[in-house]
Amino acid sequence: MSGGDGFSQAERDALYRAIFTRRDVRGQFRPDPVPEDLLRRLLLAAHHAPSVGFMQPWNFVLITDPAVKDRIHADFLKANDEAAALFTGERQALYSRLKLEGIKDAPVNLLITCDRGRGGPVVLGRTHNPAMDLYSCACAVQNLWLAARAEGVGVGWVSILHEQALRDALGLPEEIVPVAYLCIGYVTHFLDQPELEKAGWRNRLPLEELVFRDQWGRKAGQD
Amino acid sequence: MSGGDGFSQAERDALYRAIFTRRDVRGQFRPDPVPEDLLRRLLLAAHHAPSVGFMQPWNFVLITDPAVKDRIHADFLKANDEAAALFTGERQALYSRLKLEGIKDAPVNLLITCDRGRGGPVVLGRTHNPAMDLYSCACAVQNLWLAARAEGVGVGWVSILHEQALRDALGLPEEIVPVAYLCIGYVTHFLDQPELEKAGWRNRLPLEELVFRDQWGRKAGQD
Repeated sequence: MSGGDGFSQAERDALYRAIFTRRDVRGQFRPDPVPEDLLRRLLLAAHHAPSVGFMQPWNFVLITDPAVKDRIHADFLKANDEAAALFTGERQALYSRLKLEGIKDAPVNLLITCDRGRGGPVVLGRTHNPAMDLYSCACAVQNLWLAARAEGVGVGWVSILHEQALRDALGLPEEIVPVAYLCIGYVTHFLDQPELEKAGWRNRLPLEELVFRDQWGRKAGQD
Repeated sequence: MSGGDGFSQAERDALYRAIFTRRDVRGQFRPDPVPEDLLRRLLLAAHHAPSVGFMQPWNFVLITDPAVKDRIHADFLKANDEAAALFTGERQALYSRLKLEGIKDAPVNLLITCDRGRGGPVVLGRTHNPAMDLYSCACAVQNLWLAARAEGVGVGWVSILHEQALRDALGLPEEIVPVAYLCIGYVTHFLDQPELEKAGWRNRLPLEELVFRDQWGRKAGQD
C-alpha cells in the first residue's frame, strides 16, 4: 500500500537526496559547457511542472551571449548596491561579503517567464487566485533545480535585478512576467549547507514550529 | 564530470520518473490514513525548498477535522459555480463535468502559507522582486508533491476557493498569505496523463516552441 507505486526505497532515497542536497549556487560554477541534451532534459523537467488549468504559462530564454550576460550583470551590481544600503552595521558588512550571483561565471543563464495571457483571459483555477500562473512557473523552477542537482549541475536564482532592466536586455513583451533568472553550470562542489546558513545570515527553522493542526497556531495534541 | 556528483543513472531516472508521472489528483483518493512519519517526510521535503534570503516563510496547516473540511468544501462549491459561469456552451459543459477537488475524499488536507513578515521588513533578495517569498512557498509545494509521488501518495492543488473563506475557516492572521491548499492521500492509481489533457481541456505544448536564445522570440540557430 505504501510501496510508492513501484518506487523502490533506493528510488525514494534518490529523490530525497536531490531535495536535501540541492543548493542555491553562486560561487562554485565551472566554465565547462553544459551539453545541449542535458539542458534539454532540464527544460523538459521544468515543462512537466504542474500548471493551473494546464496553462503551461512558461517560456525559457537561454542566455549564453556574453554581451547579454554583461548587461544583466551590470544591472545586478546596481541593484545590489541599492540592496546593501538597506542594511546597516555588521549586517551590512556581512551582506557585502556574500557572493550573490554567478551570472558571468555560469556558462548558461536562463530566464523562466510567465505569459499571463496564455490560454485566454479565463483560466481554469486562476479566477479566485490570480497568482496561480506565477506559482506554476515557480514549480517549474523547482523541477529544473532538482533535475539539475541529480545531473551534478548547479543552479542559482538571482533575484537582485530590476525587472525593467531584464525586460530591456531580453526584449520581453509587456504581458510577459520574468519570474526566475537562473545561473546554470557544472560546479566544483555542492556546499554541505545552504550558503546563507553557513555564512551565519539565518538559521534553519525547526520544522515542528511551523506545523499547525486544523487551525492557525494550534499544535498537534493541543485542543 | 557529468556523473551527477554520485547520482547513478538509476537515481537520476527515479527523479525524472517522479517529475514526469506526478499528477494533480482529484478523483482517485483512497480513505486510508497517511502515516504520520510519511507526512513528516513530505513536510521536511517542503521545508528544504529554496527560499529567498533563507527566509523559510512557510507554515504548514494540516487539516483532518471533518468540520473544517466541510466548511472549505462548501466554499469550493460556491467558488466553482462562479468559475463555471465564466465559460459558455460546450466549454462550460465540459468544465461542469470535471472533478476539480478531493477535499473530503482525501484523508489529509494541507494549507501552505507565506508569512511575509518573517525575518523583518528587509529580506535579502526580495527588495527588487517582492513576490520572491511567495515563489519560495510554491517551490515548497513542488518539493512536497514530488516526494509524495515517490511515496505513492497523491496530491491535488485546489485553487478554486475564496481567500477570505480560507482565512476565516483556519483563523489566519492578516500578514499570512494562503499559497496552496492541497489534498493528500493514497490513490487507487495515478493517471497516465494530466487529467485536463485526458479530458480534452488543453494539450501539452511542444517544448521547442517555448525556448528562446538570448532574446525573446529568437529560436536556436536564428540570427
